[in-house]
Amino acid sequence: MTAVLDTQVPPPAGVRDGAFGNATHLVCRACGEKSPLGPFYACMECFGPLEVGYDFPRVTREQIESGPKSIWRYAPLLPVPADIATFRSTDPGFTRLVDAGNLAADLGVRKLWVKDDSGNPTHSFKDRVVAVALSAARELGLNVLACPSTGNLANAVAAAAARAGIRSVVMVPSNLEQQKIIASAVYDTTLIAIDGNYDDVNKLASEIAGEEEGWAFVNVNVRPYYAEGSKTLAFEIAEQLGWRLPDQVVVPVASGSQLTKIDKGFSELIKLGLVEDKPVKIFGAQATGCSPIVQAYEAGHDVVAPVRPNTIAKSLAIGNPADGPYVLDVVRRTGGRIADVDDETVVRNIVRLARNEGIFAETAGGVTLGVTARLLAEGDLDPDAETVFINSGDGLKTLDAVASHVGPKTTIPPRYEAFTDFWRSYTA
Amino acid sequence: MTAVLDTQVPPPAGVRDGAFGNATHLVCRACGEKSPLGPFYACMECFGPLEVGYDFPRVTREQIESGPKSIWRYAPLLPVPADIATFRSTDPGFTRLVDAGNLAADLGVRKLWVKDDSGNPTHSFKDRVVAVALSAARELGLNVLACPSTGNLANAVAAAAARAGIRSVVMVPSNLEQQKIIASAVYDTTLIAIDGNYDDVNKLASEIAGEEEGWAFVNVNVRPYYAEGSKTLAFEIAEQLGWRLPDQVVVPVASGSQLTKIDKGFSELIKLGLVEDKPVKIFGAQATGCSPIVQAYEAGHDVVAPVRPNTIAKSLAIGNPADGPYVLDVVRRTGGRIADVDDETVVRNIVRLARNEGIFAETAGGVTLGVTARLLAEGDLDPDAETVFINSGDGLKTLDAVASHVGPKTTIPPRYEAFTDFWRSYTA
Repeated sequence: MTAVLDTQVPPPAGVRDGAFGNATHLVCRACGEKSPLGPFYACMECFGPLEVGYDFPRVTREQIESGPKSIWRYAPLLPVPADIATFRSTDPGFTRLVDAGNLAADLGVRKLWVKDDSGNPTHSFKDRVVAVALSAARELGLNVLACPSTGNLANAVAAAAARAGIRSVVMVPSNLEQQKIIASAVYDTTLIAIDGNYDDVNKLASEIAGEEEGWAFVNVNVRPYYAEGSKTLAFEIAEQLGWRLPDQVVVPVASGSQLTKIDKGFSELIKLGLVEDKPVKIFGAQATGCSPIVQAYEAGHDVVAPVRPNTIAKSLAIGNPADGPYVLDVVRRTGGRIADVDDETVVRNIVRLARNEGIFAETAGGVTLGVTARLLAEGDLDPDAETVFINSGDGLKTLDAVASHVGPKTTIPPRYEAFTDFWRSYTA
Repeated sequence: MTAVLDTQVPPPAGVRDGAFGNATHLVCRACGEKSPLGPFYACMECFGPLEVGYDFPRVTREQIESGPKSIWRYAPLLPVPADIATFRSTDPGFTRLVDAGNLAADLGVRKLWVKDDSGNPTHSFKDRVVAVALSAARELGLNVLACPSTGNLANAVAAAAARAGIRSVVMVPSNLEQQKIIASAVYDTTLIAIDGNYDDVNKLASEIAGEEEGWAFVNVNVRPYYAEGSKTLAFEIAEQLGWRLPDQVVVPVASGSQLTKIDKGFSELIKLGLVEDKPVKIFGAQATGCSPIVQAYEAGHDVVAPVRPNTIAKSLAIGNPADGPYVLDVVRRTGGRIADVDDETVVRNIVRLARNEGIFAETAGGVTLGVTARLLAEGDLDPDAETVFINSGDGLKTLDAVASHVGPKTTIPPRYEAFTDFWRSYTA
């Protein structure tokens, strides 16, 4: 395998050889300037976002298949050391790729799979990205794992830090629902409630990341490593399909990082010769109440104007998405599209997925299935092509969204005659 | 491999050859009388409970390891057809066996693993037993999958039936918490609320099972098949330890079926030569507020007197456990014990597991860890022996149990100085 780089950037002092596996440098996605591997996320030249660059060795299918049943089977393709599986982590990933035959029939498509990330340790795809961020933090000598969050990310950071035995700090708006606070606080994280909205929390987190030493804000100063974790969704889809790529993939979009990294993951598999080269159309899904990238896409813009979120799909409610321009690039380049659905459609599609496949998704899953149905109806998704959509989280975390839409079919006294009266009319 | 039976009991008319794989008959656990494989659960002679008997062929580790990453890799050891993996199911099992080093240090034991069944499709071990019951229902031509339940079982039945495309009926007390109703109703099951307590619901379910044709009440008339699903916990533990048995296992006890089937599973692995023969001590865990088997154990009785449950561990709150006598037999025969902990201890141990290993268990997990700690303190569990305990469900389903025990460490305004003031005193 030839190097992807002409020159290697030396790692920072104090970092062990191989700390980032086959990663060799950070590179600015805007201007292409290289930086060393470190706790950096913005280009020194142009303030553009940094991402991880590699010099991959030869990697075989057999090597991957003989690895652990977690994202660490793909360690050679991630910025993690070769001995990563020996460290305590939540070992996320290798979730089910569900052959969704009932849903395919319901939607009128030939072949459809659901990549069901509700099976991760804290029941969302965030376990993947946090596990890689945790490794970077450890290798860089950072000793506090932190994040601003309103839900899934807080759960994942608190759980991963507990398991790894390092301190975590999770910052949330003080008016957050009690149940989301419990589901993070139970891990004994240092949960700090902030009297303010999510934007206030986020701003404070960035200030702390800039001022304090030793802090790894997973989605701020170790974001380039964190984001690489999402590539494992692409790797698993390909491996679980028998080492081949699907024709089209529908991905929920918040910051947009997951979508761009799935595209990057497919490209790396092709470059490494692990799958046959073929085009994969990438589609994005947003809720209408927070669809800044859809608005830019439809206006033909390359940049994304921020919006104020107002949707039940709170895990996708990022009004100023960091990867917005890159999402636009990927969907345009691959022949995909980004579209949105309203909150009522989100709820209907949570129920549709549950009823057809026995998978209870959080609101983001309802967004993604809803957009899949819309793109089929509007002719953007090919019903004869092989399609995968991502379910990124778990319905148990967003029960309120469906609470007023589902319930008992009847209430009866505990008598056999009462049952038979109901059953005969119900099944008539 | 020699047959375990002298004679085979012919399958009922209309059931295809191989419908139950290597299972050959049902046998009464009380009097030993054989019955054919069918929708039977009580002995015709003595009304004793029936269980599945087999004539196993040779089964190899390699054969199992090359199977699907679900309970179906153990299909030859279950009452399911050889082509079971071609049917739509939720494909549960093969959940993580977590090497719990932090918890081991906290408890002062040498080696400890958590078998974490919160990773199943509906986040409890019930997915295992329901998947096997669903197969039996299909092979027997039953077309309604049903259960009385107050939680995990309802979720598992509704999801499995949705995925399989068959009708389901879930019966719950009408005063059940709204969130538990939602988490089942979302699968579009026929959820029937019964104006009565759980005993009333259970009684009505048994009456329907006796009167109506075509109904498979998973935990009533197809219970012998259903219960076999729990053996897969034992199979997975052994395989994940590298095809060997642990020294001692701690198991949550409701009906007691899971505990007896884990013991049966280990015995079958030994008989088949898949693991080396060695004794495994089996320990049971109940909540003090529903500990009828503990009471019988401590009184030296062989039968269990029913109690009225009063505990936050609702998934273990069966006051009249069907497998009570068999649990007593297993724990006495293997040199184990059954013990209980109070509700305050349950909550403390939910937090202890979360804080140490990043695993958020439902109340049953708190019971099991609490009893593990108690048995260590009282000298019944050997701290130098290899120990596994079962986490059977997910903390997201029992948030109320910990709601008043965990929360933010502080609430501050969104200013850096407010943060540093807190942080300096907090870390001083």
